[in-house]
Amino acid sequence: VIPARAGFDLVVTTDALVEGVHFLPDDPLDLVARKLLRVNLSDLAAKAAEPFGYFLTTSWSPRCGPSERSLFAKGLAQDGEAYALALLGGDTVSTPGPLTLSATLLGWVPTGALVKRSGARPGDRLLVSGEIGRGALGLKARRGEIEDPGGAFAGHYQLPHPRLELREALRRHASAAADVSDGLVADAAHIADASGLAVTLELSAVPVPSGARDLAELLTAGDDYEIVCAASAGSAAALIADAAALGVRMTEIGGFETGAGVRTLMRGQPLELPRSGFQHPL
Amino acid sequence: VIPARAGFDLVVTTDALVEGVHFLPDDPLDLVARKLLRVNLSDLAAKAAEPFGYFLTTSWSPRCGPSERSLFAKGLAQDGEAYALALLGGDTVSTPGPLTLSATLLGWVPTGALVKRSGARPGDRLLVSGEIGRGALGLKARRGEIEDPGGAFAGHYQLPHPRLELREALRRHASAAADVSDGLVADAAHIADASGLAVTLELSAVPVPSGARDLAELLTAGDDYEIVCAASAGSAAALIADAAALGVRMTEIGGFETGAGVRTLMRGQPLELPRSGFQHPL
Repeated sequence: VIPARAGFDLVVTTDALVEGVHFLPDDPLDLVARKLLRVNLSDLAAKAAEPFGYFLTTSWSPRCGPSERSLFAKGLAQDGEAYALALLGGDTVSTPGPLTLSATLLGWVPTGALVKRSGARPGDRLLVSGEIGRGALGLKARRGEIEDPGGAFAGHYQLPHPRLELREALRRHASAAADVSDGLVADAAHIADASGLAVTLELSAVPVPSGARDLAELLTAGDDYEIVCAASAGSAAALIADAAALGVRMTEIGGFETGAGVRTLMRGQPLELPRSGFQHPL
Repeated sequence: VIPARAGFDLVVTTDALVEGVHFLPDDPLDLVARKLLRVNLSDLAAKAAEPFGYFLTTSWSPRCGPSERSLFAKGLAQDGEAYALALLGGDTVSTPGPLTLSATLLGWVPTGALVKRSGARPGDRLLVSGEIGRGALGLKARRGEIEDPGGAFAGHYQLPHPRLELREALRRHASAAADVSDGLVADAAHIADASGLAVTLELSAVPVPSGARDLAELLTAGDDYEIVCAASAGSAAALIADAAALGVRMTEIGGFETGAGVRTLMRGQPLELPRSGFQHPL
């Protein structure tokens, strides 16, 4: 039972991970547990919500014996503590199939302070935190397809960093937000669709890791867990400054206008990208 | 986002179903969808909570094409309407394994009116709604192991009836409650354990379907989705009368005392039963 908290609304989000689809069979289960919490925490971050607790469904596959389960529990405990997130309940079952995990996270927002997907207005600027493409490059690195000195990309893929630190800045300055889980272009389009607007992205402005080659792939893959958001022309600079003060780079990459759909430009010239979002190519 | 509701607390429960473990591969998917909601509604019923909405995680197996998905959605819509339960969100993923479903249900209880598992007091009577064993007999009927004229047992197994109509009666008269999902003996023991008490069951008093033979199996199997509860000696008769007025049989089958553990009697003489709870013998 969640006692009512005066002056706060509850935000609820659910995300599932399936072995062989969303994580690799040889990913250590403590990292998988932490990723499960973090992909959901990223959803709370996009809503500018304060993490509270979670409900967990674990469908154990036959390969998960006591040592695998214990490693998984260790990961849960570690990030539960790091993010002050309480395990409130759940269900544990067996499956003859792959390990399947689902978490429902609860977070609090002060009444009226929720940052919605649907709040963008014509003329709002489009901004994104951090760098885009680290999720896609991390998956390639985990599969040995690219060099990854120091393991930074693989580390981001296994253990993304939810942008909870941006909560206050988003509440103050953003009119709409989403996390980048389906791919930057698809998630920007989600905001535009929900707001009943069109969105234009200037691809050359999108910050990507240095040396990255296939821009189209990076911008349409997922698992970045950055924040893509809308802010009025008057608020964008303040949002960038507040984020910078927290050590987070926030970059203006486009804007919203009346209409529908997503338009991608490369230095002002139309350049079409696939718009499908992340298809989990494992 | 769930707006705060003044004077109410939120109850949250999660249950998962796996094909081949909790339902049969040839169970129609509209019935599976409705069972998923109903096993969770049964948890809300035991807390005397009013259903509000749910979050759904669906891991589709390769065998689930458009017609299977559409049948599943039809079942969700049907019971969503029957129980005034809104689909609030969720996640849909693919799995190479069996169809795996998880629902997190939210319900409201007036602040302070939650019926807990841990509220039983020494001297309280133990009561149960309906008949026990219909879940076990329904599984046998579905497998063709027993006769089931009219299909009532198989129907109960596929589509249990959560005892939400007992909500007001439980709030008024019960000190503790649980739903019978793990097996009557195990679920009575859960109440005793949570309350720091011992519980005694008089097995001859437990209502079972007429003609049922293996009493031990019926009382330790699960999937009944009846309510087992505690009420003071002074409240038990009122609880039975209120339930009867709603058309629900409520039977006194034992009591709580100081101590720990569960004791089973047959006409006053100790009779030991396995206490393991339902092991999903599919």
